[in-house]
Amino acid sequence: MSRQFLAEGLELSGGDRGLVAVIAVVALAALAVGYVLLREVLAAGQGTPKMQDIAKAVQEGAAAYLNRQFRTLGIFVVIVFVLLFALPAEDTWERIGRSLFFIVGALFSAIIGYLGMWLSTRANVRVAAAANETGGREKAMRVAFRTGGVVGMFTVGLGLFGAALVVFVYTGQAPKVLEGFGFGAALLAMFMRVGGGIFTKAADVGADLVGKVEQNIPEDDPRNAATIADNVGDNVGDCAGMAADLFESYAVTLVASLILGTAAFGVQGLLFPLIVPAIGVLTAVIGVYITRARVGENGLSAINRSFYISALISAVLCTVAAFVYLPSSFGALEGVPEAVAATGGNPRFIAAMAVIIGILLAVVILWLTGYFTGTEHKPVKEVGRTSLTGAATVILSGISIGFESAVYTALVIGAAVYGAFLLSGSVVVGLFAVALAGCGLLTTVGVIVAMDTFGPVSDNAQGIAEMSGDVHGEGARILTELDAVGNTTKAITKGIAIATAVLAATALFGSYKDAISQALADVSIGLGELPISFSNLVSDPNVLVGVVIGAAVVFMFSGLAVNAVTRAAGAIVFEVRRQFRENPGIMDGSVKPEYGRVVDICTRDSLRELATPGLLAVMAPIAVGFGLGVGPLAGYLAGAIATGTLMAVFLANSGGAWDNAKKLVEDGNHGGKGSDAHAATVIGDTVGDPFKDTAGPAINPLIKVMNLVSVLIAPAIVTYSVGADASAGVRYAIAAVATAIIVAAVVVSKRRGTAIADTPAEATTSA
Amino acid sequence: MSRQFLAEGLELSGGDRGLVAVIAVVALAALAVGYVLLREVLAAGQGTPKMQDIAKAVQEGAAAYLNRQFRTLGIFVVIVFVLLFALPAEDTWERIGRSLFFIVGALFSAIIGYLGMWLSTRANVRVAAAANETGGREKAMRVAFRTGGVVGMFTVGLGLFGAALVVFVYTGQAPKVLEGFGFGAALLAMFMRVGGGIFTKAADVGADLVGKVEQNIPEDDPRNAATIADNVGDNVGDCAGMAADLFESYAVTLVASLILGTAAFGVQGLLFPLIVPAIGVLTAVIGVYITRARVGENGLSAINRSFYISALISAVLCTVAAFVYLPSSFGALEGVPEAVAATGGNPRFIAAMAVIIGILLAVVILWLTGYFTGTEHKPVKEVGRTSLTGAATVILSGISIGFESAVYTALVIGAAVYGAFLLSGSVVVGLFAVALAGCGLLTTVGVIVAMDTFGPVSDNAQGIAEMSGDVHGEGARILTELDAVGNTTKAITKGIAIATAVLAATALFGSYKDAISQALADVSIGLGELPISFSNLVSDPNVLVGVVIGAAVVFMFSGLAVNAVTRAAGAIVFEVRRQFRENPGIMDGSVKPEYGRVVDICTRDSLRELATPGLLAVMAPIAVGFGLGVGPLAGYLAGAIATGTLMAVFLANSGGAWDNAKKLVEDGNHGGKGSDAHAATVIGDTVGDPFKDTAGPAINPLIKVMNLVSVLIAPAIVTYSVGADASAGVRYAIAAVATAIIVAAVVVSKRRGTAIADTPAEATTSA
Repeated sequence: MSRQFLAEGLELSGGDRGLVAVIAVVALAALAVGYVLLREVLAAGQGTPKMQDIAKAVQEGAAAYLNRQFRTLGIFVVIVFVLLFALPAEDTWERIGRSLFFIVGALFSAIIGYLGMWLSTRANVRVAAAANETGGREKAMRVAFRTGGVVGMFTVGLGLFGAALVVFVYTGQAPKVLEGFGFGAALLAMFMRVGGGIFTKAADVGADLVGKVEQNIPEDDPRNAATIADNVGDNVGDCAGMAADLFESYAVTLVASLILGTAAFGVQGLLFPLIVPAIGVLTAVIGVYITRARVGENGLSAINRSFYISALISAVLCTVAAFVYLPSSFGALEGVPEAVAATGGNPRFIAAMAVIIGILLAVVILWLTGYFTGTEHKPVKEVGRTSLTGAATVILSGISIGFESAVYTALVIGAAVYGAFLLSGSVVVGLFAVALAGCGLLTTVGVIVAMDTFGPVSDNAQGIAEMSGDVHGEGARILTELDAVGNTTKAITKGIAIATAVLAATALFGSYKDAISQALADVSIGLGELPISFSNLVSDPNVLVGVVIGAAVVFMFSGLAVNAVTRAAGAIVFEVRRQFRENPGIMDGSVKPEYGRVVDICTRDSLRELATPGLLAVMAPIAVGFGLGVGPLAGYLAGAIATGTLMAVFLANSGGAWDNAKKLVEDGNHGGKGSDAHAATVIGDTVGDPFKDTAGPAINPLIKVMNLVSVLIAPAIVTYSVGADASAGVRYAIAAVATAIIVAAVVVSKRRGTAIADTPAEATTSA
Repeated sequence: MSRQFLAEGLELSGGDRGLVAVIAVVALAALAVGYVLLREVLAAGQGTPKMQDIAKAVQEGAAAYLNRQFRTLGIFVVIVFVLLFALPAEDTWERIGRSLFFIVGALFSAIIGYLGMWLSTRANVRVAAAANETGGREKAMRVAFRTGGVVGMFTVGLGLFGAALVVFVYTGQAPKVLEGFGFGAALLAMFMRVGGGIFTKAADVGADLVGKVEQNIPEDDPRNAATIADNVGDNVGDCAGMAADLFESYAVTLVASLILGTAAFGVQGLLFPLIVPAIGVLTAVIGVYITRARVGENGLSAINRSFYISALISAVLCTVAAFVYLPSSFGALEGVPEAVAATGGNPRFIAAMAVIIGILLAVVILWLTGYFTGTEHKPVKEVGRTSLTGAATVILSGISIGFESAVYTALVIGAAVYGAFLLSGSVVVGLFAVALAGCGLLTTVGVIVAMDTFGPVSDNAQGIAEMSGDVHGEGARILTELDAVGNTTKAITKGIAIATAVLAATALFGSYKDAISQALADVSIGLGELPISFSNLVSDPNVLVGVVIGAAVVFMFSGLAVNAVTRAAGAIVFEVRRQFRENPGIMDGSVKPEYGRVVDICTRDSLRELATPGLLAVMAPIAVGFGLGVGPLAGYLAGAIATGTLMAVFLANSGGAWDNAKKLVEDGNHGGKGSDAHAATVIGDTVGDPFKDTAGPAINPLIKVMNLVSVLIAPAIVTYSVGADASAGVRYAIAAVATAIIVAAVVVSKRRGTAIADTPAEATTSA
């Protein structure tokens, strides 16, 4: 058995099994804490009947969308389930487990997403109501942050429970089964990110283009037919999509560590990656409970303080765990491969340092993102000032800032990977150290999810307050402050999410190489007889072509996502204009607009639009892998990771900076609301919307989906490329089918054209 | 001697030397044809005294800028000359040759650039004058295109002459010396592209922001103090910078082929890559002379027809040359390495197919770019239509189109590389085939340069006509048509240039690996003893980190270039506003604005701004190579090539599409000039300016500079990493110095801040 990362003979002792069981209990405890927080949130006051009406409309729209989305995705999941079942496996037990846990991963992702949406559509009105009470600031912030806490607890609880369950049941075969679990989580999260992202930004951009730009009515004005859809979007995109995405980040990082663990650290390598996130559960609970703003303190400072404190506690506890649980030499590890046993170095030290690197990475990204997108720092202030010379300079300066911050973030992530890798002299242990750095990052996920959910909940609370007209004075001021804080926390989460993608993807590369070498051993082919498509040298032209294609897919995916938003937004612009035109009573407030129609258009369009980028993500690695070979596919993944990292941060931070530059102007700088400078920043913000909330965040699950697809198909590529079963016909047929599916999807999406472009000019200009 | 790509013992027979001499004569003949065309252009009428005055101001401004630029760059060149001299070399003869031909390459690049500027500043007024005469369309187009022909002839003539000279003098050692030649050409071209690009777009954006946006006066209005600077910019950026860039593309591609030639094809491998571009010289002459617009025919169709005809002739002649000059089996090649001699396959067929792939690549890129940026196709029409929903949708649709077209272009280039590589079963021959595809592309460069130069010359001609007020009616209409044609030809050239970068860079990877294996052989270290930094597996974490850093440098470079333009444009905005404010006579036309002051600001700022991106390009590979090792450096190059390709095409085509969408609206669509739709497209065009003329085109020489730096430093990295002279101290000290230089350059550039941001609000709003 040449497979490094499978430990067939590995047996867990009674004590080890007990430890896994304890970890599973910790995971369930996290769910229990989540439930306690949930009760607390729901117990809060629900405000005036008008507010409750609005909240109900949002709840219904969001639930309807997610239900339809899950029905659509169900078909995908079933197809992939069957395909997965057909892929080569060691035995039937593994085959069943892989497909079954694929479903479990997808289901958990869906549950987290649904819960995030369900709760936030109930918390929003409660936050708005709390702001209206005496001592409202403290209360509102508490409800908003604890809502995030619920989602955070369920994210880490379900993720850790799923992984512990697989390890408990499958032991040595756990890695292969975990690939299925991670893939299910990532695939569903990607679709939810893309679909929800298109929904939320189509509604937002559409609402802004007609409302703010054409009719000059404020954001969230009830006369705008797209306002309910905009609020629904916050919940299905920013809440459901984001929660699923962070769950997926959690699951895949854990999967990568568990896959690499036994080869590097033996039995302890399978258990230590479970201990670290279990510690994370504890610190997340602390982080959520200690978050409260002191009098006169900025909400963001309070949240950041909790984050720093819980990160510090994590670092200390993980170091203690490493020194207590791990031995001081590789030889003393149980069931570790012989080659590794002879390695010098101290596993305790390596593990502790790796985890600390991961935690530090989270801290640095938090700071970097805050610097580039926060209103109080130089970059956003500069973007704000360029509004004086018009929209073009706003766009250019935002793009510059996006590029620049992407570079620093990518370099920091690269330094973390390199640093973790260098902790050990061997590739196997080095890869595990990278994965452990990912686990370190995971210890912060509970608080990060809470921070992120805070964003859309306060955004929505402000929306409901504005629409109902029932929150005034101090209450309105509190909600505006919370909304601004939410903008920054959302940007931070995206930085953390992309960091997990790079760490997990780097670690998964080990699993990819391993799958190939095992498949090669199975067909007993000498290395000298391998065709050039097995080359893994980055300098070979075919591998380089793979790198180019990988980078290209990220551009394509981003372009498709942005395009889908502009197209869907166009449809909404026409609908809102139509309502204004056909029913003049809407403008003077005597008639309620038909909110439901806009929600329906968003639902229909975003479900239609998510197919093309989704298919691209799944099919492109299949086309490259079977068409060009495993070497170019490795290049493809590297290209996608590198370009994906930069693109994701660029899109997120440009968008964040434009959003907050607009807030700066609205706060009275450079002429304030209604000035030319304000109009310029509104244009910047609109450009940034699909950047930061659709294309950018979807790149994170994209990278993981492509990596996991590659790991899963690698043995099949080898089987059809060399040895007795080699068949160029089958290989190229698979590649051709995958390519055809991509081309067909892109052509169908092109055919749809730009809604704006397809509508006759009179409809366009008669608003 | 383990070095594959050096053929120390290689001797050229008398006949071979004769052939090289003939090729050198063909190169000189190209210069002679260029001179004939030059006389013809200068013999054309120079128009009215007013037009001549304006032209003179542009000539003086451009010459002054280039002179100052060369003085600044002279310092760089001297420093690099000394550093090159210090790098390891086989013997003193090679050491001297490498440094000497570095100077020659830089000098040729400078000469071509200067000539391009010199001639186009004289041709512009002659084109304007010709348009005013009877039969003006034919005459004007002839002068404009023949101006391009001169530059094209000098580009191919000097490139081919330089390469032939090196081969003639250095034979077996030619590859190392050619690295110096190519590096000199690429380095100078990169600086000219960056400096000229900043100049031209700072002037253009600055002029537009005050003129079109604030004062609502037309483009090229003589009351705008920035108009002369804008015209100077066209010449130093689009003419001088572009000419140097294409010369560099020509030289480096040729260098890459010659380096790989002997290892794959023996003596014939050193000569065939010279024969192909010599054929290109012939077909370029034909292409330039047959270009004339038929009655009623669009100018672009006429130019495209010439291109297709000359490409077809090239393909036929090159195939004939391959079958006449090359033998039908590898064994029959002279002086070919034994391993290759045993290879199956037919060198004739491989060579002919590779060259044809390169020519086809040029044709496909021409078509693709025309489709995505031409006014008559769907993409630009869609961007035009989105102007109805405002600037934000214009920006978003332009970015989508840029992403999408970048993907297709990258895939086409990737397919060409892969196709050429697959022609042979061995890596050595496959790499040479990629290089030969580059040579095939080169056969079109003569016509491509002519097409490109056409753009700024007609742009300038229109500028002079507008400013002088001496060209009316039919003459003005002709100039507008030629200007629009020029917009598209400029975009096409950028696509071709980036394709040469990928082909040359892929081929240079062979040279890079070779330099490392020779250096390793010199220190006699076994492969098993190599540290991890020698890994070249794309899946190893440290190599992956290299890929991320390489991609990041492209983002950084682009961000710096865009930022430099906005900063310099800000300074110009304030100067033009100041002149309007302090001298009200300018607006009513009674007083001439001080054009010279704006030219001075552009000159000063662009020379100051080019240092940071330039240093980044040279120092980053040094920092990565010495700091992380040769494996991560290979990853770095792959990341830079992949992301660079996509980014370059994205920036060029988004910019081109916005520019032409604006032209569409100005032609009377969607409300025409002065409408809201027009304002929206002006914003798009302004955003696109630094994209398409500063950041985008500079990425092409950037990639080559970084590749050549890596090839040149590879032996030194090996020396300090392993073996007797290994010294971690020296290695990391070099990396630290390089990193420190980058950081210092970035900090200095940041300190400068945004001119717009640093100026007090009252100065900003009092225009």
